[in-house]
Amino acid sequence: MQVTELKPGATIGIFGGGQLGRMLVQAAGRLGFKTHIYDPFDDTPAGRIADAQTIAPFEDMAAVARFAKNCDVVTYEFENIPIEAIEHAGQFSNVYPDKLALQTSHDRLVEKTFLRDKADAPVVDFAPIETMNSLSEFVRQFGAPAVLKTRRFGYDGKGQVKVEAPRDVKAGFARLGGTDLIVEAFAPFVREFSIIAARGLRGGLDGEIACYPLTENVHKDHRLHTSIAPAGDVQNVSGEAHAITHRILNALNYVGVMGVEFFELNGGKLIVNEIAPRVHNSGHWTQNAGCTDQFEQHIRAIAGMKLGDTTPKHAVKMTNLIGDEILNADALSQEPNNYVHNYDKRDIKPGRKMGHVNEVLKKP
Amino acid sequence: MQVTELKPGATIGIFGGGQLGRMLVQAAGRLGFKTHIYDPFDDTPAGRIADAQTIAPFEDMAAVARFAKNCDVVTYEFENIPIEAIEHAGQFSNVYPDKLALQTSHDRLVEKTFLRDKADAPVVDFAPIETMNSLSEFVRQFGAPAVLKTRRFGYDGKGQVKVEAPRDVKAGFARLGGTDLIVEAFAPFVREFSIIAARGLRGGLDGEIACYPLTENVHKDHRLHTSIAPAGDVQNVSGEAHAITHRILNALNYVGVMGVEFFELNGGKLIVNEIAPRVHNSGHWTQNAGCTDQFEQHIRAIAGMKLGDTTPKHAVKMTNLIGDEILNADALSQEPNNYVHNYDKRDIKPGRKMGHVNEVLKKP
Repeated sequence: MQVTELKPGATIGIFGGGQLGRMLVQAAGRLGFKTHIYDPFDDTPAGRIADAQTIAPFEDMAAVARFAKNCDVVTYEFENIPIEAIEHAGQFSNVYPDKLALQTSHDRLVEKTFLRDKADAPVVDFAPIETMNSLSEFVRQFGAPAVLKTRRFGYDGKGQVKVEAPRDVKAGFARLGGTDLIVEAFAPFVREFSIIAARGLRGGLDGEIACYPLTENVHKDHRLHTSIAPAGDVQNVSGEAHAITHRILNALNYVGVMGVEFFELNGGKLIVNEIAPRVHNSGHWTQNAGCTDQFEQHIRAIAGMKLGDTTPKHAVKMTNLIGDEILNADALSQEPNNYVHNYDKRDIKPGRKMGHVNEVLKKP
Repeated sequence: MQVTELKPGATIGIFGGGQLGRMLVQAAGRLGFKTHIYDPFDDTPAGRIADAQTIAPFEDMAAVARFAKNCDVVTYEFENIPIEAIEHAGQFSNVYPDKLALQTSHDRLVEKTFLRDKADAPVVDFAPIETMNSLSEFVRQFGAPAVLKTRRFGYDGKGQVKVEAPRDVKAGFARLGGTDLIVEAFAPFVREFSIIAARGLRGGLDGEIACYPLTENVHKDHRLHTSIAPAGDVQNVSGEAHAITHRILNALNYVGVMGVEFFELNGGKLIVNEIAPRVHNSGHWTQNAGCTDQFEQHIRAIAGMKLGDTTPKHAVKMTNLIGDEILNADALSQEPNNYVHNYDKRDIKPGRKMGHVNEVLKKP
């Protein structure tokens, strides 16, 4: 892999203008880089504070080409960018993470197969589902409950239905059928973790890898609610989780920051739930931990800089502010150890991630 | 004092588009505020990443009025803003720090007199100088060396001349005469310190005050070179320095972040060298200390939010990158404990502050 090291003043292009893009813009700005946001919508959280923006559909290949030509490197802040846009941008600029990472995470079946076969990562039993019979067969073989999911465009619990017992097969298939589906054995997890990891451009094919410590995550209504890092009581799982993460990054020849989500089963067995080829909500705590934050880390990685320190100097608890919880931001900021991050979104909507608060938990 | 508490989405106006403005814009963005930079020049480090900018001379009162009307609060990033602009903006918006702070720091004679008479702060002997005779008289009374300075527009050692002996009086006066002058007794200091302090809008006239620990500063060629915080071996001076700082902030009924520079003389006596009514170069270390950084602190103060934590979680050494030292930024970033901050200035010029690097010195 060729190392293209960006100089300050270079322009970093980002597909997507949401809060993750916004925090990438802020980190790039600290390092003296310019930023260019590509988003179909005007007045986005990231576009407003970027040096430049392109407002066009992701399918507009002429706009994608103009954008990529004006950028020294291109990245993305969410994974539902069409592969065609990434491929086309790649003709005019380096794109990190590359197409392989995006293709892998676009499709749950491709992702699970990759994790199992290429990264030697533990995953739940799964199978592609094309007919109701194949779903019945899976439930017969692996038992219930099982989770039927659309292979693409699922997030925050959308596009999935739980098959609690064999008698639910028909209704479940009827609800999601017609699109490409995957069924997964239900993982009766006791804890949820993630690892935020980065792999740099330097160091040839082996890449330089830097991982943050395990983060413990708590979901509410299928959305991330809180993350605490470093997670406590993890001596039995930490080593394996980091080893798995290394294998995933290397198998993808990955460049940038990735979020890897784990389930811990009773008895300490780990399962990889999914990977996100981008900065990740469960890594927001890094912003107030006294080490490199995940956004700067991603910029360092794709700019060919050396990766920064990933050792938090104290524990941090991150809590998402969803919908009108953002109205508590001012009250939360009354506590000196709270650091509020507000995405400056135009409208408050139920379920919308409006901001987060990082609470510094321990003093030295 | 009336507390006007800003809501996220509100606009913070900043006079001045340099690196201090840029870092204020970044901090305001994290808190969900919009920013508007006012600067005579286009394409400034801060203007480029602000939500809006006004490009007009500070003397253009119509532009100042339009700017202030569009902002929910106005502040400034350097002190050589004409008082008239601040006064005019104040007709349409709240301005913090207010006119009194700016007037005081505009003029060395006013500043020294204020410090001595209103804040009970120790300063060197000084006198206004209008004639060569008055300079001779001062040197006769207080001895040489003495330092003759212009009362206004001095920075980084400009606008001053050292009178080493009585025989230098004539040449010194000839060099600076014709403008308003002040002479100061030379302070044979052994160390230079600063305190970055903030006073909030809340809490009525007594204000809420939060100080960072003493920072030790080293100058080179009359420019700040390095800052280390927390400074070591300060048990004899820390209490007094903080008490003086509190008196200064309260005497000015100050709102925002201020930098107070101290000289330590042989034997531990402290002298206040000068005050800067803004975020300060010697406070840049706060960005990577695991506490609230001075830029966010300033935004919190002027937005009516509660002040943040000022306890660093580890020591930090800040080194300015002057002129083509910025070309070392990439090499410096190879060290994982280094955090490079690049101001994205268009041209490298000798003596120009191009960026800085914060080195995290201690791990827990």
